[in-house]
Amino acid sequence: MEMEHKLFVLVDLLGTFAFAVSGAAAGRARRLDLFGVYAVAFLTACGGGIVRDLCLGAFPPVGISEWRYVACSALAATMALWASPWLERLKHPVTFFDALGLGFFAVVGAHKALSHGGNIEAAIILGTVTAVGGGVMRDVLLARVPTILAKEIYALAALAAASIQVAGEVSGWPTVVTPWIAAGVCFVIRFLSLRYSWSLPVVGPE
Amino acid sequence: MEMEHKLFVLVDLLGTFAFAVSGAAAGRARRLDLFGVYAVAFLTACGGGIVRDLCLGAFPPVGISEWRYVACSALAATMALWASPWLERLKHPVTFFDALGLGFFAVVGAHKALSHGGNIEAAIILGTVTAVGGGVMRDVLLARVPTILAKEIYALAALAAASIQVAGEVSGWPTVVTPWIAAGVCFVIRFLSLRYSWSLPVVGPE
Amino acid sequence: MEMEHKLFVLVDLLGTFAFAVSGAAAGRARRLDLFGVYAVAFLTACGGGIVRDLCLGAFPPVGISEWRYVACSALAATMALWASPWLERLKHPVTFFDALGLGFFAVVGAHKALSHGGNIEAAIILGTVTAVGGGVMRDVLLARVPTILAKEIYALAALAAASIQVAGEVSGWPTVVTPWIAAGVCFVIRFLSLRYSWSLPVVGPE
Repeated sequence: MEMEHKLFVLVDLLGTFAFAVSGAAAGRARRLDLFGVYAVAFLTACGGGIVRDLCLGAFPPVGISEWRYVACSALAATMALWASPWLERLKHPVTFFDALGLGFFAVVGAHKALSHGGNIEAAIILGTVTAVGGGVMRDVLLARVPTILAKEIYALAALAAASIQVAGEVSGWPTVVTPWIAAGVCFVIRFLSLRYSWSLPVVGPE
Repeated sequence: MEMEHKLFVLVDLLGTFAFAVSGAAAGRARRLDLFGVYAVAFLTACGGGIVRDLCLGAFPPVGISEWRYVACSALAATMALWASPWLERLKHPVTFFDALGLGFFAVVGAHKALSHGGNIEAAIILGTVTAVGGGVMRDVLLARVPTILAKEIYALAALAAASIQVAGEVSGWPTVVTPWIAAGVCFVIRFLSLRYSWSLPVVGPE
Repeated sequence: MEMEHKLFVLVDLLGTFAFAVSGAAAGRARRLDLFGVYAVAFLTACGGGIVRDLCLGAFPPVGISEWRYVACSALAATMALWASPWLERLKHPVTFFDALGLGFFAVVGAHKALSHGGNIEAAIILGTVTAVGGGVMRDVLLARVPTILAKEIYALAALAAASIQVAGEVSGWPTVVTPWIAAGVCFVIRFLSLRYSWSLPVVGPE
């Protein structure tokens, strides 16, 4: 149980790191200054959780009051700025942790929503928001249409994870099993969609 | 009284539907994928109310915890995606419900703010935010300047409705009358401004 | 003590005015309509404080429930629209009040966060957010990358003020001294960076 808790913290921080890397890299490509890169890295990693906590009335949001998340985002931004060749070599691990973090954040968000009195619907929505909210903030701050709204199967994988977690908690599945199934399904969806370049259909005018 | 409550729910859902249609249509025109269209439709319809509830400390926000709003937004997005010729024929009704929903959302928002301890000023602001906040989110997500800030008399009509509702509640007008006057004034302003292509002046450099 | 309180209110309103001027001027340059200019002026002045209050669970946020802030923003927008030659002559005072307001908002935000149960980290972050959040909203609404993320030493000066204020409160410095030191350091950083056109390095691809 103790070991499981450590694993939990580890996955949480690895996901935060991977999210922050994507924020820092996008900020750097957009030629933000130092402060901008650190700020966008932090918001990409923690923005989803902050919105979730605001919606649940959990004050102050965990993203701004636990130093681990700030430190983890700062480390990612520092590497993206000054060790980008080194980070380049970590490209596959970062994509891996990003997919892992996505499902994990969705599970954590859905669980927190349920335990703060949210109903099924709120838990599914807030689980998804926890996972993808930061990426939306990143793109809004960089003045572009959020990629998760237009490309790739990303939010859908998070939605699947949040839904499975909620189904598990409501149906009383064993608590040591549900999160891994949920995050695992998210990871597999994400892995397959990257592997085979899947994307959701775009229905609209040419 | 019972009938009035049913009418209330009906107008609320019709307004939600019309708002969601505008979100889905904008997302489709911008070539978002399926998830993106549903997400933007939902946020356009419910975003204003969510911000209002966050500002009032009403957790979780009603937009994410009542399945009717999600269902209504999803229906609108589905129609915008796959039945757009059919929706095209509903163009006038949708504009009609949008104008109706605008005033109605402003009234509901102002009333909720007052009954959650907001003062006059907060109620007027949050009533307006309830009505126009979703449209602002839609445009921010699509990376463009919100139309309500630059074109048409839209926010002003919502502001009028919120102000009348607040005036009525503070002055003790009969509660069955005030909402209809407020929403009616909003509707008339909106109708006339569409009919005669009114817009607010733009003061600034060429 | 009474006089100090009056001075406090005065600096607060002068800062609000200067922030609102920057919002109104940006909105006018982007050719927003009347409502848009007033709305952006208000959000630039009060947006940071609103986000801070949402994160602290202080409802309703002070920016939407105290008429002074709305009145002050409206005055600034009115001047920016119809007395812009006159405002042009006030250019140096406005820059002065903006720099003063920046440090002052950071100090007020950090202090409020600490007194609402925030820890050191939350107080530093929310102090900075109070000072720069409105400017970020202004730029997001105008569909452009926030200037504070890409240019000038602005957020860093606010971060310095928030950090000094938090250090002072935690270490028990005299409460009549700390705010002035914090805001003073912010002002000097800001003044020097404008005077010598300092900016943070941009690390990234050409």
